[in-house]
Order: sequence, then C-alpha cells, then structure tokens
Amino acid sequence: MATTTLYYSRGSYSWAPHMLLEELGEPFEARRVDATQGQNRTPEYLKLHPRGHVPVLVQGDFVLTETTAILFHLADTHPGSRLSPAPGTHARARAYEWCGFFSTAIHVAIRQAFRPERFTTDPAGHPGVVASGLEALKRFYAEVETRLESSGGPYALGEQRSVVDYFLPVFHRWGHRRSLDMTPYPVWQRHMDAMLARPFVQATMEREEITPTGLK
Amino acid sequence: MATTTLYYSRGSYSWAPHMLLEELGEPFEARRVDATQGQNRTPEYLKLHPRGHVPVLVQGDFVLTETTAILFHLADTHPGSRLSPAPGTHARARAYEWCGFFSTAIHVAIRQAFRPERFTTDPAGHPGVVASGLEALKRFYAEVETRLESSGGPYALGEQRSVVDYFLPVFHRWGHRRSLDMTPYPVWQRHMDAMLARPFVQATMEREEITPTGLK
Repeated sequence: MATTTLYYSRGSYSWAPHMLLEELGEPFEARRVDATQGQNRTPEYLKLHPRGHVPVLVQGDFVLTETTAILFHLADTHPGSRLSPAPGTHARARAYEWCGFFSTAIHVAIRQAFRPERFTTDPAGHPGVVASGLEALKRFYAEVETRLESSGGPYALGEQRSVVDYFLPVFHRWGHRRSLDMTPYPVWQRHMDAMLARPFVQATMEREEITPTGLK
Repeated sequence: MATTTLYYSRGSYSWAPHMLLEELGEPFEARRVDATQGQNRTPEYLKLHPRGHVPVLVQGDFVLTETTAILFHLADTHPGSRLSPAPGTHARARAYEWCGFFSTAIHVAIRQAFRPERFTTDPAGHPGVVASGLEALKRFYAEVETRLESSGGPYALGEQRSVVDYFLPVFHRWGHRRSLDMTPYPVWQRHMDAMLARPFVQATMEREEITPTGLK
C-alpha cells in the first residue's frame, strides 16, 4: 500500500480526517501546513491544492482534496471500520445529508466569522459579514442539537458510528473559539465528551497542539 | 416502491436531481416551490426543510435534503445506472471531491453573487459581497475548465458518466444569468452542449420553464 500523508493545519477542518486516520491505526504522516508562514501558498503546495487549503490526502500519486471526500474515501477503503453505511441505504443517504449541511451551511458561517475578507472586497464590510456568520452559526448549531436528539444517539446516525461523527468535534471547538455559548447543546456536549474520551482523538490533539476550546 | 416527489425551484440547484430523476425514467412528481410567493416558508414546507431550501426529495416517509446527498442516493439506489462509481475506488473519491468543490466553493460564490443579504447584516455591504463572489466565480470556473480538461472527457470523471455531470449545467447557466463571459471555457461548453442535446434534460427545462441562459 502506498504511503499516506495528510496535510493539516492546527484545529482546522483537517482535524476530522486526522482523527479518522489515527483511529484506523495504519501508518501515516501528518504534515503541518502553517498558513501564517505562507506554507499553503508555495508552488509545491499549490500543486496539491490549487486554492491552497487543507486538508489534502496523498497516497502514492493519488491526491485528494475536500474534507468530505477524504473522510468517505478513507471509510470506503476500510470497510471493516463500518464507518460508511452501505450505499443505497437510508443511513448512507443521511450521512451524505449531514455532510452537505456541514459544507453548505456550518462551514460557510464559520468562514464568515473567522475570515470575512473571503466574502467581501470591501474592508469596511467585514463586521457585517462576521455578524451575519455568527447569527447563522447559532441557528445551525441549534439544528445540530435537534438532529442529534432525533437520531436517538449516541452517534449522529443513531446506533451506528460513521464519518459524520468526526466532523462534530471540529465545529464544537470552533464554537468555543468564537466564544459562542455552547451550553444550549447538551446532547452535542455528550457527543463531544465521548469523542474526547477516545485515545485516538487525544493523540491528534497532542500532535496538532490544540485543546477542546483553543490552542496549547 | 414509495412515490417519489422532488421539490424544486426554477433553475436552482434542484435542477441537478431533477435531470437525474427524469433520466432514471421512473415516475416521480416534480413540485415547484416559488420562494417569491413564500412557498418555502410555510409551516408545511419548513417541516421538510428547516431552512426553507430546495431541493427536497420525499420517498414515502423518507425525507432527504442537500443536493449532493440526493444525487448520490438516487444513483446508489439505481446501481444499473452506473452513475456512482464503486465505493473505495479512486473514481468514487474523485466524484466526492468534485461535489465538495461545488458545495464549498462554487455554490458559495454563486450565493454571494445572487443573495448578498445572506452574507452580511449590513445592507450597505451588499456590493462588496457581490463583487467578491463574482471574482471568486471566475477563478472557480477556470478551475472547472482545468479539471474537465485533465479528466480526458467527455465526462467530469473521464469515460464514465456520473452524478457530477448533472451539477455542471446548473453552474453553466448561472454564469450566463450573472452575465459572466463563458467563452474562456470551451471544454465546459462542449460538456454543456452534450447535456443539452439529451431529451431528458430538455424535458426538465420545459417543466421548469428555463432556457440554457435564462427563464422562458
């Protein structure tokens, strides 16, 4: 099998595939990309990702971008992990739906809150973009709580652990990073606590030098 | 098999699953949702989609949102269509990656260009959001062209037609709707022409009362 490399940045969306790779237990290299040092804009890195984002998964000469794609690909190529439900089932469709909600709603609002310059050409417009992102986040986080409740738990899809569960700690931590009040989400908090109790999650936090609410 | 209903709005993202359903050739009901009449904000509709968006797929008591989820679910439940590559293959991973690029990049820029009020609380900030969206779109559309070229064609994944091909006409038409110059994308234009030549695509355009560049 080709060597696996994951390009990540601390506490970013790439934390999700980082956790999954750690849990799968096969050797991989985690390579940190420090955007503050411009490491995501080098000619070498832009060959891996034309927009200079993380994560990127490299396996031999196969280069894959997009968090959802990487998670499903890792789960699909490790069917023994049972982390991607069988294609054609309602559970699989629900997993896609969760990931769609993350990509099209939560992650966009997060980017507004952290990186308003990506959404407007007008520097004076940043506060309005941030405020809109934070407003949206509160609605979306309430929807996460409702969805988790209605799944019956303990996982996002109910009894069955899946790729979806690896996204949720990333968003939970980002909520803290933006000083959102996270107490209205007790079901999500239980999910977070359960994920944090897992040794493979702790290992990734050591490597990324992050805490559940910030940086180490 | 349960009756299938697709909730759509004219020429929106829902056009992609609309085309796919039409091609699959099984009976389905296409139900138009007119946001200008507030039909996406009724209590009944918000039960189907808590954020009032299209598309929504309803099959019996199974309700599914998110365009990517609906497309993969339809393809996965119709394996004879060969529109979703086998899980664990590089082709499947590449299909996920295209859809991630659509959700996290193109669709966001499109929303900025059409719906700036979703990105800022400040009405004076709309022009900056629109300008930023249009700038980003040009970069993303150039990336579509590069990706299509490097796939070897004629489809997004190369020889193999897939769910990815149903998204591309939506974005191509939106480019025209925003008066973008689409001539720098000849490979994409060939893809568009091939899709428009298919009778099932024409059937959906009749039903939605849209043209390749606008409304009927």
